[in-house]
Amino acid sequence: MAKDMTLLWGSGSPPCWRIMIALEEKNLQGYNQKLLSFEKGEHKSKEVMEINPRGQLPAFKCGDVPLNESCAACFHLECKYKTQGTKLIPDCEVGRAQILQRVFEVNALVEKSSSVIYYNWMVPEGERHDSAIKRNKEALTAEVKLWEGYLQKTSGGFLAGKNFSLADVIVFPAIAYLYRFGLSEERYPKLTEYYKNLMNRPSIKATWPPTWKETPGQDILKDI
Amino acid sequence: MAKDMTLLWGSGSPPCWRIMIALEEKNLQGYNQKLLSFEKGEHKSKEVMEINPRGQLPAFKCGDVPLNESCAACFHLECKYKTQGTKLIPDCEVGRAQILQRVFEVNALVEKSSSVIYYNWMVPEGERHDSAIKRNKEALTAEVKLWEGYLQKTSGGFLAGKNFSLADVIVFPAIAYLYRFGLSEERYPKLTEYYKNLMNRPSIKATWPPTWKETPGQDILKDI
Repeated sequence: MAKDMTLLWGSGSPPCWRIMIALEEKNLQGYNQKLLSFEKGEHKSKEVMEINPRGQLPAFKCGDVPLNESCAACFHLECKYKTQGTKLIPDCEVGRAQILQRVFEVNALVEKSSSVIYYNWMVPEGERHDSAIKRNKEALTAEVKLWEGYLQKTSGGFLAGKNFSLADVIVFPAIAYLYRFGLSEERYPKLTEYYKNLMNRPSIKATWPPTWKETPGQDILKDI
Repeated sequence: MAKDMTLLWGSGSPPCWRIMIALEEKNLQGYNQKLLSFEKGEHKSKEVMEINPRGQLPAFKCGDVPLNESCAACFHLECKYKTQGTKLIPDCEVGRAQILQRVFEVNALVEKSSSVIYYNWMVPEGERHDSAIKRNKEALTAEVKLWEGYLQKTSGGFLAGKNFSLADVIVFPAIAYLYRFGLSEERYPKLTEYYKNLMNRPSIKATWPPTWKETPGQDILKDI
């Protein structure tokens, strides 16, 4: 069933990881997949561009339909395989609304993380300012506190309610990314608990970024 | 039916506008609404913060459930009122996948537009660089060309297929925003055609930003 799907991915990329978790949760193992290297520029290769004209990973195709936006891909898999594997969007209206809210809110977290983690990569040397780095770090700190607060208010250990859902599929990789880049485990106890609990979930364990197993993380976020 | 919904909004904000278009399309007129002023800082007021802790507009509540992420709100309205008003997500799998892809792709368009339109607002004076402005404009130009290309390839005059869909609800305000800020009508003929056709759609006409009717636009994007 998964044989008509192709995923070109990069290790450690939260958008790629989301799709891989969703595929595991929906019991869609056996899809065609290829690990590419960002460092070697393989995300700009012809085989990627043919699926994803933005030259980004993931490049994901379900049958003939490209679904390169990782959240779109996860939604699609849940809609198409609604009754297979884990139910990622409940029928309950309130539960669904909470999940939708968190799914779209992840953009703010990703944007603010990237502005700190990739500052030197995104901003040429002559344009860098300590004041900008400070502002970006403050914005990320406020954002992480917001998510810590969300987890303080939920009771089931998941982001939206008592069950693992599409919100976790989509947000977990962005949270794991923070720890990979040095977020303090002590400063955000609920977030850390969430992170440590979910890292042992089979779908997440099976798709853990291979490069993260082989190389140490960084400490860019240690003062967030 | 719409009486249990509350929308606090700002004129000209694409996220606010999305929700208003979705409400019109789903025949959900009569909701509680209040126009607030960004200039007066009313988006940081207590009544907003109670619904949206980020202090941003829209602040939208459906019953007791906050749905401040505009795309989440639109999805929710379509799921909850599936058989009422315009069908915004088709049952057809391929059509749905195309819509999902465009819906999530809008983030790239919004981010790149904002980095040009709000450069002086986001970047303090001492941190501004002509080289950054140039780079941001180039990135936005490439992005707008991508959307022009999407519209060249569709046949029905809408973003995803032959019918007005959730992709149009969500992306149209971001495209109208480009023209409000001076995008050339000549340089992007398909995008302009799309913009001009949809501006007369009843749901869009009924929700056109009031401040846009009263004040002239700007020309920040004239060389994009």
